[in-house]
Amino acid sequence: MADSERKIIEEVSGVSELAKELQDSASTLISKTTHEEQSIRQRAIALGSNIRTLHSSIASAVQNGVIDRKNAEKLDEELYRAKCLLNDGDVASFLPIKQHGGFLRMFLGPICVRANKKDVQLKVKEEYNSYRDRTAFMFLLFPSALLLLRAYVWSGCLPTLPVQLYQAWLLFLYTSLALRENILRVNGSDIRAWWIYHHYCAMVMALVSLTWEIKGQPDCSQKQRGVQLFLQWAIMQGVAMLLQNRYQRQRLYTRIALGKAKRMDVVWGETAGVDGQLWLLCPILFILQGFEAYVGLLLLKTAMVGVVSEWQVIVCGILLVLMAVGNFANTVQTLMAKSRFKAKMKKSKSKQELEGSPKDSRS
Amino acid sequence: MADSERKIIEEVSGVSELAKELQDSASTLISKTTHEEQSIRQRAIALGSNIRTLHSSIASAVQNGVIDRKNAEKLDEELYRAKCLLNDGDVASFLPIKQHGGFLRMFLGPICVRANKKDVQLKVKEEYNSYRDRTAFMFLLFPSALLLLRAYVWSGCLPTLPVQLYQAWLLFLYTSLALRENILRVNGSDIRAWWIYHHYCAMVMALVSLTWEIKGQPDCSQKQRGVQLFLQWAIMQGVAMLLQNRYQRQRLYTRIALGKAKRMDVVWGETAGVDGQLWLLCPILFILQGFEAYVGLLLLKTAMVGVVSEWQVIVCGILLVLMAVGNFANTVQTLMAKSRFKAKMKKSKSKQELEGSPKDSRS
Repeated sequence: MADSERKIIEEVSGVSELAKELQDSASTLISKTTHEEQSIRQRAIALGSNIRTLHSSIASAVQNGVIDRKNAEKLDEELYRAKCLLNDGDVASFLPIKQHGGFLRMFLGPICVRANKKDVQLKVKEEYNSYRDRTAFMFLLFPSALLLLRAYVWSGCLPTLPVQLYQAWLLFLYTSLALRENILRVNGSDIRAWWIYHHYCAMVMALVSLTWEIKGQPDCSQKQRGVQLFLQWAIMQGVAMLLQNRYQRQRLYTRIALGKAKRMDVVWGETAGVDGQLWLLCPILFILQGFEAYVGLLLLKTAMVGVVSEWQVIVCGILLVLMAVGNFANTVQTLMAKSRFKAKMKKSKSKQELEGSPKDSRS
Repeated sequence: MADSERKIIEEVSGVSELAKELQDSASTLISKTTHEEQSIRQRAIALGSNIRTLHSSIASAVQNGVIDRKNAEKLDEELYRAKCLLNDGDVASFLPIKQHGGFLRMFLGPICVRANKKDVQLKVKEEYNSYRDRTAFMFLLFPSALLLLRAYVWSGCLPTLPVQLYQAWLLFLYTSLALRENILRVNGSDIRAWWIYHHYCAMVMALVSLTWEIKGQPDCSQKQRGVQLFLQWAIMQGVAMLLQNRYQRQRLYTRIALGKAKRMDVVWGETAGVDGQLWLLCPILFILQGFEAYVGLLLLKTAMVGVVSEWQVIVCGILLVLMAVGNFANTVQTLMAKSRFKAKMKKSKSKQELEGSPKDSRS
């Protein structure tokens, strides 16, 4: 046997040995890590239920006059801080995974989309925010361009293809937003369920509007009234989105700084927080919702009168009204929660009774 | 200070202490695991390049007559086994993550969709297979129902809504398949890139066909010729999918049993493998591809002649021809690779020279 042959044979068996060793250490690492993760998970769950119990025993102690309110507040704050550490610190990645929504399952199958590392989670959140920024810009640009071109180039009559391109883009946009928000939810964000449902509705509407034949001449302005209104609403929506994004990012950073928010929070269209800009944002949101409902009703009216009698018009009308009502209800709920919270704070400061939910919604 | 008050205060500080401890052990676990994972990753990368070097030195040793062919084969097999252990064992989950495709980024953002645990990866793969099974069934059922209803209920004229529902379903189906296949790819499956591109084309086609107005009376059969052909093609596709799924699952299990495949392999439309069923599957695939091209060309012809002169017809025609050609090329490539492999095996068994790529494509 030649020397070089022997050398190769030795090297091959060495490599084979190394591969086995590596496989062993990998499987050891996996089982060890799994075990330790499980132990941390169990301790975290136990601690979480401990915190809940203590919260309620503090509340009853205050009622029975065992603890005075000031001390109780301090204790509550300490508990809150412990809870934040649990839910927002490194422990969070070991907490049991929230059940996947059906939407993610439907598109992606049973793959786990939770990031284990906090920095990756934050990257996802950051990317989502900047995606929304880019999107809001497009949201403003696309319908504006269509309406401008309609007025100055297309002499009052929208051609089919650009509108359909816009609708296809909307379909993609809402699908990707719904997917991303579901993913954020799995990663611990407490985004309100409605904003996700809202995007499901918007997806359906974009899909339906794609099948909706854009009628051309004659009587363009009459037949395209619905599309035109929709585009105008979209421009307003774009402006509102830009404002909201600005406002919410500021609010999020403020809340993070105050240690009051998990950084995975996303609050699309939610309005609790920074007061100054809120009084600019709120009216715009309400006007937008009103206009959304108006466009929806107008579509339903055109369907009733019989100018355009396709089923798509009716479905889009109903969806728009539904979304407007849902958005309105959710915005109001958020404002209510906020003012209730403030009222509570005020009351608790003036040492009054904590019970009862104040109906006054002004803060 | 009352006893019960003291007790609560103690409990709260205890909980606070526990939360901090838990946070510490979680962060320790994370940094420790990250460190160990990195070390395994580096060792795995080094070993991988070692294996490649040894492979080539064995090949040159055979050429120089230092090692005889039989021994070389044994050594190669040993190396191959080491490689499998590396790529398919527990080590695999520590290997560097393949770059996300733009498609996943576009829909999901920068979230990591790689499963760390082998059993989850396999679950994803299994689910993908059963999803394809369910899908193939729908793929067969949906167009069959449409064509039957057309013949016996709708008196030769397809109504718009059911066809559009079908097209919307196709759009969803292809999107979810493309997403799932991209995810499988990230998880180490070696699915051919073409089958994913194929689904992108199909997505575009479904989207375009949604905007395509289904013309009704008069002259239904003339105007709906394209849709009808498309539905017939879809039925054939459904049958082929069912056959392929059956065949590929068997082949996959065989290959897993032989230790020749990573279990994440997916080979949609690929045809290397189990010989018996291949000679049933191949002609069906080729007929299907021919029919696909035929439908595409027919659509283009109707657009040229001017029966239906919408741009959608032209785009769908081009896409169908493109997909047919791509499918054909990929099927042939797979068959060629297979026969080349077989020829090599034969030659190496009869102790002939290994070099040169045999042009004979019969196996």
